Amino acid sequence: MMNIAVAQSGGPTCAINSSLVGVFKEAIKEPEIDAVFGSVNGIEGIIHNHLVDLKTLIFTNDDMELLRQTPSTVLGSCRYKLPDYNEDDSVYKKILETLKQRQIGAFFYIGGNDSMDTVNKLSEYFRREAADIKVIGIPKTIDNDLCITDHTPGFGSAAKYVAATMQEIVRDSSVYSMPSVTIVEVMGRHAGWLTASSAVLHDLGETAPHLIYVPERSFYVDAFMKDVRQEMAKHKAVIVAVSEGIEVPDVSAPAACAEKNSGGEECEGAAVSYRSGVVDNFGHKYLSGIGKYLEEAVRKEIGCKVRSIELNVMQRCSSHICSRTDIDEAEAVGAAGVRCALSGETGKVMVFRRVNDMPYTIVIETANAANIANNEKFLPDEFITPTGNNICDSALKYFLPLIQGELNIIMDRGIPKHFTIQESVLK
Amino acid sequence: MMNIAVAQSGGPTCAINSSLVGVFKEAIKEPEIDAVFGSVNGIEGIIHNHLVDLKTLIFTNDDMELLRQTPSTVLGSCRYKLPDYNEDDSVYKKILETLKQRQIGAFFYIGGNDSMDTVNKLSEYFRREAADIKVIGIPKTIDNDLCITDHTPGFGSAAKYVAATMQEIVRDSSVYSMPSVTIVEVMGRHAGWLTASSAVLHDLGETAPHLIYVPERSFYVDAFMKDVRQEMAKHKAVIVAVSEGIEVPDVSAPAACAEKNSGGEECEGAAVSYRSGVVDNFGHKYLSGIGKYLEEAVRKEIGCKVRSIELNVMQRCSSHICSRTDIDEAEAVGAAGVRCALSGETGKVMVFRRVNDMPYTIVIETANAANIANNEKFLPDEFITPTGNNICDSALKYFLPLIQGELNIIMDRGIPKHFTIQESVLK
Repeated sequence: MMNIAVAQSGGPTCAINSSLVGVFKEAIKEPEIDAVFGSVNGIEGIIHNHLVDLKTLIFTNDDMELLRQTPSTVLGSCRYKLPDYNEDDSVYKKILETLKQRQIGAFFYIGGNDSMDTVNKLSEYFRREAADIKVIGIPKTIDNDLCITDHTPGFGSAAKYVAATMQEIVRDSSVYSMPSVTIVEVMGRHAGWLTASSAVLHDLGETAPHLIYVPERSFYVDAFMKDVRQEMAKHKAVIVAVSEGIEVPDVSAPAACAEKNSGGEECEGAAVSYRSGVVDNFGHKYLSGIGKYLEEAVRKEIGCKVRSIELNVMQRCSSHICSRTDIDEAEAVGAAGVRCALSGETGKVMVFRRVNDMPYTIVIETANAANIANNEKFLPDEFITPTGNNICDSALKYFLPLIQGELNIIMDRGIPKHFTIQESVLK
Repeated sequence: MMNIAVAQSGGPTCAINSSLVGVFKEAIKEPEIDAVFGSVNGIEGIIHNHLVDLKTLIFTNDDMELLRQTPSTVLGSCRYKLPDYNEDDSVYKKILETLKQRQIGAFFYIGGNDSMDTVNKLSEYFRREAADIKVIGIPKTIDNDLCITDHTPGFGSAAKYVAATMQEIVRDSSVYSMPSVTIVEVMGRHAGWLTASSAVLHDLGETAPHLIYVPERSFYVDAFMKDVRQEMAKHKAVIVAVSEGIEVPDVSAPAACAEKNSGGEECEGAAVSYRSGVVDNFGHKYLSGIGKYLEEAVRKEIGCKVRSIELNVMQRCSSHICSRTDIDEAEAVGAAGVRCALSGETGKVMVFRRVNDMPYTIVIETANAANIANNEKFLPDEFITPTGNNICDSALKYFLPLIQGELNIIMDRGIPKHFTIQESVLK
């Protein structure tokens, strides 16, 4: 008999709690496993021996269904990066102490890049210390930028929100007879997956988004203005999707960024940030993101009706329109993690391999955490049009299966019911 | 036999198309009514004789259900205010010419304040000209600021979106162990109905929103900071809902706005706008709204993690989470408008009278357009807490019935299917 522990880390998504349900549900079926501890605020909960017994919080299948539908991380989160244990293993000792004291034989970490680094380091350290504790990574991120895996849990729900909302914005922006430009800013600091996913509207016969800009391509304001003018000649209401992560090169340092490609290398020093507190080319202090920046630029240069919309945290927490495919896969990958640990593996991350687009078929496999940690996956070149300002139709077969299906959302007094744990329990 | 015309005006909502369905469905049942014309871009379509025959565009019950679920205005919209016909009746003559030429005996205008002004003026003008054309107003606005009616179609769906999204933002903002402030900016330039509706979360046991600011009360940055600090002492993640329409008084002109009350009178000249292009007290050019302004203020004064979120057009066009009560009522009020015209009335607006909160019961009545046009209805004093920074629990019974129920949303390839009319038809 052994206990296990599970923790959630990084930025919220709609699917992290579903992976927690996957781990919990599989664990309570296993006669080998006794207690299932939830670590409060990611790995910090293990460090500070702050664990909750999930069997005292989750009782019924209804509880589990509710938790699957609840966005964000019910156990809290953290952004904690472990040091190199060869340089400083003090925190590792604390972690090992907690895990041993609680008789924990396997630890499941649901998270993104940094969390997979934790999985890798912990599993190596436990090996060195001859501690028989398995460490398994369960991927999640709306950015979809983890290597090896076909996609990441959390991405499908975010993409479904972005596509559905973009379509509603198309309706909203098309009502007046005057020409207009609407700029929708989508999350993704380095990789353009989520912004690119808005192109699924093309499959439904929408001409919008008319322009899509991702961080994998260099961005120039002059070229952008030309693109917008060209689209305005064709469409009354032009819709632009733009990744928060695109950088506007300093016009006084021309072509310094021209080499930036889908490998995604940064071109430091050559870009003027439009972010908080930095003075831009217009002499303004920009307190907002690229959307607001481009809105001002269009207003100044073209002078038409223009609006920018930041999808903000809604794109990562709108569980009321989550993708059933995503939520089901997030649960499945959590359950698979438990089976992986029981089979004796450690230092592994559960990944998806796509067998077929249509009918959509995936299998769950494992990868070494070392190969996933601290790496990023970018949009393939063939997804982006040669002009660099839109997404190819051939890429849509990648995105479409991930946004399919809806959950039967449980409502309470007109809004979705959420599963929550009392603040006092988590303190 | 006669024909009728219907038009949509003002800002988009989730319910305007449902009112169009209500008019259309009732009209095709009436043997007295032949063609049902849709006017493109509100009253402008009548002025320019730009009408479409809706029976050539809407065929089946499925079409109608799809249209009920489609946000914004399928016939386009306008912001056109008729002049006084005593001063200039040239445009009235054009309107009358179109209506006579098309043998239109009744015109239905779905819109807000300004549209009800159009209903009033047109009905008076037709009376003066002894033209037997009925003019009926069908209310809509997410602002809920029309007089006489208990509430307006469009408001319930917007309120449901705001409440559901606010709850998701609560989950999203609560994950880290550090203290934080999240400021959510909600639409409403003069009246705080939509912002106030976020208080329904309190009925579900949420402590958030911890602070709610509406334009019916004066707003002072100093008092706001004090409020935020007080709430931070009680809650790790403080959530603030704020109407876009609150004004930050110039600190160098103290108390000039102190008299502003729920009557909603403006205090011109005393407020420093934080809007586009205006330099604020921090010496910045503010390009965004009050949310971003307060975010910066909190960052500067308190120095904690702070984020602002603008719900932007999503709060008026997110049909995927519309209120069934709202959509059904919007259809019913459209149908009632047709019956009202056939009974010989004109210059009327269809309104709701609430008979009971629980079980929720309303009746549809008529009011004179003259009494609704150009007026605004503000939050009653008793809805706002004495401290002016939250909403009373006793007000929740007003809001809750309006957000109840969901439609069975028709999906297509993972996102809601919309009813659209080809751009070429509307040109």
